[in-house]
Amino acid sequence: MPRLIKLAEPEWSLATLLDAQLDVVALIIERQLASDLPAVNALCRHVERYRGKMLRPTMVLVSGLAASGRSDFGDVLTVGHRTLGAVTELIHMATLVHDDVLDDALVRRRGETANALHGNEMAVMLGDYLISNAFHLCSTIGDPSINLALGAVTNTLCEGELLQLHHRDHLGVDEATYLEIVRRKTASLIGEACRLGGALSGAEARAAEALRSAGEALGIAFQIQDDLLDLVGDEDVVGKSLGRDLDKGKLTLPIILHLGEADGRTRETALRLIEHRNAPALRALLIEHGAVDRSAARARAYVEAAKDHIRVLPDSPARDLMLALADQVITRRF
Amino acid sequence: MPRLIKLAEPEWSLATLLDAQLDVVALIIERQLASDLPAVNALCRHVERYRGKMLRPTMVLVSGLAASGRSDFGDVLTVGHRTLGAVTELIHMATLVHDDVLDDALVRRRGETANALHGNEMAVMLGDYLISNAFHLCSTIGDPSINLALGAVTNTLCEGELLQLHHRDHLGVDEATYLEIVRRKTASLIGEACRLGGALSGAEARAAEALRSAGEALGIAFQIQDDLLDLVGDEDVVGKSLGRDLDKGKLTLPIILHLGEADGRTRETALRLIEHRNAPALRALLIEHGAVDRSAARARAYVEAAKDHIRVLPDSPARDLMLALADQVITRRF
Repeated sequence: MPRLIKLAEPEWSLATLLDAQLDVVALIIERQLASDLPAVNALCRHVERYRGKMLRPTMVLVSGLAASGRSDFGDVLTVGHRTLGAVTELIHMATLVHDDVLDDALVRRRGETANALHGNEMAVMLGDYLISNAFHLCSTIGDPSINLALGAVTNTLCEGELLQLHHRDHLGVDEATYLEIVRRKTASLIGEACRLGGALSGAEARAAEALRSAGEALGIAFQIQDDLLDLVGDEDVVGKSLGRDLDKGKLTLPIILHLGEADGRTRETALRLIEHRNAPALRALLIEHGAVDRSAARARAYVEAAKDHIRVLPDSPARDLMLALADQVITRRF
Repeated sequence: MPRLIKLAEPEWSLATLLDAQLDVVALIIERQLASDLPAVNALCRHVERYRGKMLRPTMVLVSGLAASGRSDFGDVLTVGHRTLGAVTELIHMATLVHDDVLDDALVRRRGETANALHGNEMAVMLGDYLISNAFHLCSTIGDPSINLALGAVTNTLCEGELLQLHHRDHLGVDEATYLEIVRRKTASLIGEACRLGGALSGAEARAAEALRSAGEALGIAFQIQDDLLDLVGDEDVVGKSLGRDLDKGKLTLPIILHLGEADGRTRETALRLIEHRNAPALRALLIEHGAVDRSAARARAYVEAAKDHIRVLPDSPARDLMLALADQVITRRF
């Protein structure tokens, strides 16, 4: 009897349940993007490669399970959870598509790409198509408060992106500004994914807010880990070209911490390496002077804060899974 | 007594009412875009220049008035109408900002701009910020069916833009494809603005659908008129650089009609002029062979169709104003 197996092996069955639900989320996205225009469908197939770890839908689903506090979780997740998961992933995909437009633009500024232009034009419109579909899909849930909450979050997310562009190539960015950018552009959506996932399972205000706080802290940790991987990751494992933050003039936490704490001469060295976009030497300097370790400690502290918030929820296998996922945010190597 | 004056001079007071309501729409947009981040507010001031004729909010408001069928229209328009008007304008502003990114990109391809890059990056994110704010503001109306309808329309709008990009530089585009693009990228939003404006005044299904059909037909006429102005308009009057459609490889109706109907030799001449982006000579050819007149006749036919739909509504001063606005769509010189 499947249900007995689930009760007997909650973690195994939880993972199976999540996998199956994420498959449904992927199908919802595919169905949502389907157009009656063959040209649009052909373009959307390109976009599929932007779907990666499905972090945001995972957080919606796990939050939905954890907020219920139930061990017999077979019927906790609804079409609302899965649809919301698809909406958060579509929003994320749109930001990736538009981020790439910005990146390609800069790479082109340095003359490295010649013919990325047609791709960029399509990417602007494809990103818009994804955003629009996210809001349309969100409206099908039929709960106006979710539309309002997600609209507020995407406003915040865009503000974070604009603030980041505003500070591009500013070598004076401090840790507080960095955190303000990350909180808005990355943490806000993950926090809201967790809160709404819980709310859809009937979570009360305190539990829903704990989930939001947990998601925001995890979002910050996630971004710091991304910064670290871009600096010291293994390109073959991460699966994308690294050192891009430096190329883009985006100051990441290790650099900010180093510039804020190093003595005059070491600071000058770092500034020269940044100016010359010398990633290997900068990496060595930041490791040697402890800025990489201090950044990793910051990420670890955010994960611990997230776990404290998660422990507000009733003890359950889903809560345990959420705690384990929190650790994976900074132990991941890709 | 203001009300007596309104009843005695309906057209004068209607125009005054509309002006005042459009001022409120502008304030709603300004308030919606206000951020706690000074950097974002500074950027939004740049965007204000994208607000032009306020065609879409005007259609929402006039449709709302006309659908009510009342002559004492002082209290017909609600905060819902004004908010919806602001939403449609924000969506339109976003498409203008992102269209300019595409245009700048092509101009850069021909080497004419050197330093538009920072502007483009900001423009992608600013456009996203506008779209996000449009959906957020829409959610404040509190009617999920409006969110769903607008989400469907922006999907359609993006499909139109993508279809247009797909056919860029295709010299074989026919009138049906042109109309398909225009129907999606321009007419769909104006049609929905009219339908929802009427629905917010309690219009019944038949009247609301008539308003949608009227708005769509006017949207097509509006786009054809834009095409004509880009080709034969007076740059000083139109207030923007003309001949851009040709630069962008966008085939407009006069060109399409000419290529579809001209004899072999004249067709060859036109193709050569298009290839060399020779706007003055192409303009002369299209005027001489009647393609400009035939395009204007098409626009006129759509305006007449729109007026037939408008006449489904009960006779009222607002309906008369709407009929007059329909004519202005193609008599305008800017």
